[in-house]
Amino acid sequence: MEHVTKINDELYMTTTKAPVNIAVIKYWGKTNEDLIIPANDSLSLTLSTEHLCATTTVAVGKKFREDRIWLNGKEESVHSPRLQNCLHGIRKKSQYNHAENFPDWAKWNVHMCSVNNFPTSAGLASSAAGYACLVRSLGTLFHIEGDLSGIARRGSGSACRSMYGGFVAWVKGTNPDGSDSVARQIASSDHWPQMRVIILVASDTKKDTSSSHGMARTMETSSLILERVSNVVPQRMKDMTDAILKRDFNKFAEITMKESNQLHAVCLDSYPPIRYMTSASWDVVNLVHRYNQFCGTNKLAYSFDAGPNACLFLLEESLPEVLALVEYAFPTSRKADFFRGRPAVVGKMSQELVEYMAINPQQDAIKFAIITHVGHGPEPLDNPETHLLDIHGYPK
Amino acid sequence: MEHVTKINDELYMTTTKAPVNIAVIKYWGKTNEDLIIPANDSLSLTLSTEHLCATTTVAVGKKFREDRIWLNGKEESVHSPRLQNCLHGIRKKSQYNHAENFPDWAKWNVHMCSVNNFPTSAGLASSAAGYACLVRSLGTLFHIEGDLSGIARRGSGSACRSMYGGFVAWVKGTNPDGSDSVARQIASSDHWPQMRVIILVASDTKKDTSSSHGMARTMETSSLILERVSNVVPQRMKDMTDAILKRDFNKFAEITMKESNQLHAVCLDSYPPIRYMTSASWDVVNLVHRYNQFCGTNKLAYSFDAGPNACLFLLEESLPEVLALVEYAFPTSRKADFFRGRPAVVGKMSQELVEYMAINPQQDAIKFAIITHVGHGPEPLDNPETHLLDIHGYPK
Repeated sequence: MEHVTKINDELYMTTTKAPVNIAVIKYWGKTNEDLIIPANDSLSLTLSTEHLCATTTVAVGKKFREDRIWLNGKEESVHSPRLQNCLHGIRKKSQYNHAENFPDWAKWNVHMCSVNNFPTSAGLASSAAGYACLVRSLGTLFHIEGDLSGIARRGSGSACRSMYGGFVAWVKGTNPDGSDSVARQIASSDHWPQMRVIILVASDTKKDTSSSHGMARTMETSSLILERVSNVVPQRMKDMTDAILKRDFNKFAEITMKESNQLHAVCLDSYPPIRYMTSASWDVVNLVHRYNQFCGTNKLAYSFDAGPNACLFLLEESLPEVLALVEYAFPTSRKADFFRGRPAVVGKMSQELVEYMAINPQQDAIKFAIITHVGHGPEPLDNPETHLLDIHGYPK
Repeated sequence: MEHVTKINDELYMTTTKAPVNIAVIKYWGKTNEDLIIPANDSLSLTLSTEHLCATTTVAVGKKFREDRIWLNGKEESVHSPRLQNCLHGIRKKSQYNHAENFPDWAKWNVHMCSVNNFPTSAGLASSAAGYACLVRSLGTLFHIEGDLSGIARRGSGSACRSMYGGFVAWVKGTNPDGSDSVARQIASSDHWPQMRVIILVASDTKKDTSSSHGMARTMETSSLILERVSNVVPQRMKDMTDAILKRDFNKFAEITMKESNQLHAVCLDSYPPIRYMTSASWDVVNLVHRYNQFCGTNKLAYSFDAGPNACLFLLEESLPEVLALVEYAFPTSRKADFFRGRPAVVGKMSQELVEYMAINPQQDAIKFAIITHVGHGPEPLDNPETHLLDIHGYPK
């Protein structure tokens, strides 16, 4: 039982950490709400778990009276349909795949415990990492081999992309039961080692329309969403895959920014309209386009999901200058821990760049920035000290 | 020579005032930049000249050495292609229509002088009223009968809709030369007498992308604009015409808001993205949707053009409550002249409404509000004292 700790004959557990992913071809809209079948293919970069990850311990115990789950220190209901769909999916697959040598404990109840290492107040989508982590852990515990992205998908659509490292596509599939709506790796995490990601966490984290409700409203009311899913995205999936395989950053950046803009355009075309981008988001958009104009090519790209936080993509060579730009445009009163994540040198802006940019600095519009890179998919943590559950199967 | 003042044998002049119009089916994008042929039909409400208008005096004089133009007190070049296209269009039509009894002075030069009665700093589109006024004046001076909207269109696209009062469609037409791209009245100014319009002038009037550049960028780069112009707008033109003819305010409001949102959605889908709506604009959007939710039907609609100012549509019966809402949501430090235009009573919000709205008041986000209604097309001013040019043909 690889990666599984046997506590005793009646209690087994395993711990996994799993990454966040940032879509550059956006997932927005489902054709089946229950099965979570997306309206279009999408494509993301899996981020390193060194800086952003979910950690989940799953235990199976003979004495557990029922399935239970603790998220970030708080017990939550296990009866959410999405969680039930994942548990059901795993148990079914477990039975099917291992009918002969299936251990007794496959029918026992499970205790699940998950935490995120990134600030929960940051408005960063944590459900993708969370469900990927949970499903991967359950897969390990019930020693299921092969692709589990279809099960992770039932927890949170974008979680399926966090089941792989590097550059990952989620194909919508064609089967009405969603069985071929799964993730596939386009390129591994070491395919484009110069790729860097900076997440700018906006200070204004007002509660907005949830992604799920937003998507549903867009599918129901936008007059433009069908054109997007039918015609625009299929072409962009090809172009983006091509740009990634050729490591063409200029093209990668262009499609990334157009995709981000179109996601927010169809949100605005929804009724009532949905707005995720704030003034701070637009400050970032304008900064990036102006910087690229100065460079004469796209050295930087932004992407916004269902929130005001910006995700910037760039190559290592541009990092010092871009960090200087960020520092200049968004002066902070918390200098000490403004830049987090991967250590990096803040460069200097040339006088020419300063003048060209004509920035109107926005004090504290950005709370902090996380510097990171492309990373691996979910990984088991074999050190028993990393388990989040104690030897009785309860949160430590 | 109806409406023309003969100063002497060598100098004739006429003065016209012309209205602003607010599109509820939006014009965004041209299929021919030079001819100003729009990508789709559009539909607008002509506003009363009592509150917003351009006034233009045009004189034709034997001693004028050249065509000259003064706008809001400042002489401008007559060589702009758009102005030249209008002048040429009028002169051609004049010759053609009146070959026999055409007076000598048709070949003399003209002096044109135009002013707007609304604050120029308000960011209200003045070119529509301005060109409609100019073309209507020239038409009077050269006694041309019939539709001149095609000529006004060459000055500024939306000016063609200001050539008529009431509810006006601009059909894009099918002729490649643009000859059938003209305005048509859908319903007269007294068709829906309860209709009221409130223009909320936003305080933040940052210079943004001009409409003309914005449209061109959208046509060139948006992946969604074609779907809009080919499929969405044709259906909405029918639905909107129907709503207007039936005086169905709920439907009128819904289409108006969806149209406004889609205009800004295709702007956001442009590359680089174009943004006209500010935080104050979004405060208005949220206010309107919440108010309609409270009412259980659409009592209020917003529309935004290429700027942050909101245009609200409502029926007379809702005016007192809506003014109270505006006053509550956007407290002002200039109480005395905050509400301008048509006299109106500010009502009271019920406690229930106050609680439901849960408004976070935005001090001075709105500079002032103009209350107005649907009005007539351009009208000649026969009182010689209204002429903006003196008896020598120069600005008074």
